[in-house]
Parts: sequence; C-alpha cells; structure tokens
Amino acid sequence: MKVKVLRLGHRVERDERISTHVGLVARAFGANGIIYSGEKDERVVASLQDVVTRWGDDFIVDYQRDGKRVIKSFNGYKVVLSMYGIDLRDGIREITHQEDDSLLVVVGGQKVPGHVYDMVDVNVAVTHQPHSEVAALAVFLHELFEGKELDKTFEGAQLTVIPQRKGKKVREEKSDS
Amino acid sequence: MKVKVLRLGHRVERDERISTHVGLVARAFGANGIIYSGEKDERVVASLQDVVTRWGDDFIVDYQRDGKRVIKSFNGYKVVLSMYGIDLRDGIREITHQEDDSLLVVVGGQKVPGHVYDMVDVNVAVTHQPHSEVAALAVFLHELFEGKELDKTFEGAQLTVIPQRKGKKVREEKSDS
Repeated sequence: MKVKVLRLGHRVERDERISTHVGLVARAFGANGIIYSGEKDERVVASLQDVVTRWGDDFIVDYQRDGKRVIKSFNGYKVVLSMYGIDLRDGIREITHQEDDSLLVVVGGQKVPGHVYDMVDVNVAVTHQPHSEVAALAVFLHELFEGKELDKTFEGAQLTVIPQRKGKKVREEKSDS
Repeated sequence: MKVKVLRLGHRVERDERISTHVGLVARAFGANGIIYSGEKDERVVASLQDVVTRWGDDFIVDYQRDGKRVIKSFNGYKVVLSMYGIDLRDGIREITHQEDDSLLVVVGGQKVPGHVYDMVDVNVAVTHQPHSEVAALAVFLHELFEGKELDKTFEGAQLTVIPQRKGKKVREEKSDS
C-alpha cells in the first residue's frame, strides 16, 4: 500500500520541530511522502530533504498551502488520525479490507478542523487519550505495516547504523559522483 | 511491569512542546510516570498535570536536574532509546526475560550523551533511522505492552472519548467534590 501523509495547518512560529518530527516519522515508518499544508516553511522541507540525502530511499516532501484541497483531490482511501476516532485495530482492519491501494493519512496539529472529518473515509484513534500526532502517526504506520517497516532497507544511503548494545556505530559510504 | 520514563536534558527555550509530547505519550501508552531532567520548566509539568486531572489515572510527573543521577540511583532494569541500539524486538525480548519488575526508559533529545550508554543495561533502537523520541517512546511502549495499553481505562477521568467514525464526542463527568 502506498501511503502519503498530509500534515495540516503548519505554523512557522510554533510547529517547526513537531512538523519535522512528523515528516521524519512518515519516512522512517514506511510512508512514501509527506505534504505540508498551512504556512510555507523552507526549514522543515530542507531538513527532511537533508535526511533523505544522507539516510537514503525515495521520500517525497511537498508543500501545498490548502490542505482541504489536497484531501478533496486525493484519489484513494483517506483517514484522519485523532483521539476521537474509532479504535486503531478496527481502523486498520477497515483500511486493509478496502480496495484502494493508495492511502492518505491526515494528521492535524492540536485541533483538527471539523470539516476534515466529513472529507475523509474514517477517523482513526491511536488511543483515546491526548498525546501527540508524532506518536499517533508512528504507531498507526507500525500497525498498518505489521511491524515490517522496522526491517526496511533504505536504498542509496550514505549513512547506515550498525546496531550496538552500547554506544554508536555508523557506516559511511563514500561516493565519487 | 512498572515503567518510568526519564526525559534527558530538557531546554526551556527549545523543547517545551517535544518534552510535553514525550510526557503525554508516556502516560497514554501505559508508563507510570515521567522524570524531566535538564532545565526546570513549570509549563511542561503544569500542562501534564492538567491532562492527568481531566483525563484520569495516576501518573507521576517529576523533575530532577541531574539525569545521570536518576539513572545511577534507579533500582531496576535500564534502557536508553536511540537509533544506534539493538533491534526493537531483540530489546523487548531481553527486557521481558530479565527479572526486574521496574524499568527505566531513558529518552534523550537530539543527542544522547555518550556516558548514558555505559550507565544503562541496553540501548534499544526503534528503527535505525533518524526520527523522533516521541515516536520512539510510543512504539517502544506499544511493543512492550503488546498493544494492551490501547485498551487501558483511565480511572477517575472527568473526560472520556466516545469513539466516532466522523466528528468528536466526549462524555464529561461532573463531580461535586
């Protein structure tokens, strides 16, 4: 399943780190790309693209001011993540049993605008407690991909971690190109 | 298993939202408490305590300037989450097969100081890609508790979500006390 994440309503002043974390999580947990809506923020896009260059794989980072329009024009199944939605496992079952091979996962900031609930197929909750869109997206993708995203290899990476019980070890591939 | 989270090296200027998300995730995904180290930040503590009051259950929010000391004096098994560690499933297996019933989960900011790796029992990676301590903690707890944390009830909650496919519904318990 091809997954695109839409991060709604980014605010330059407040959201830089959270929005960056949302994008990094989308990439690390197997989504194919992220679209930011709201205020344009070159820092977020640049820091994600830098990670893609160094740590590999294709991951598309995009910006479109109007998130509503992105949802409307998306051709595939659409979910929003919020604490008010149906239970995670029910949501995953529903998503994997429908026919579309493209999924749009909408994540808001603190508040998801009411009209978004009407524009998507289903509202899925990762716990019904207040926490974090960063965490909700990670656990959602982890369940959607049944944990297989943990074994994903990132093609063309300049940097690769060599797992260690203590300390850090990173292999660096030098390229002549 | 009783789980305490230690958030290392909080910085008032930069980390308010990320540190708050770490605390909210610790609570929502079944940890028993969080300790913040680094700079003291009343806003983070207050906003977590406000969530505990409204959304229920016991969850202890604590502050101790010196994170190293917290790790040293903790009586139980100790892990740090970082992208450099051993694979998540290997880490979880190791934790659930050891004898301590108390677990300290250390999460850093962007960089975990080198000495921390030597002070814990094991370094566990939630993917070996750069992403977010918020996401790493959520997926770690979700695997540790085998997803059962999703069904946790929060005792004494004033607010409870009634799951909806679209929109929001929250039940509010009025108390006379």
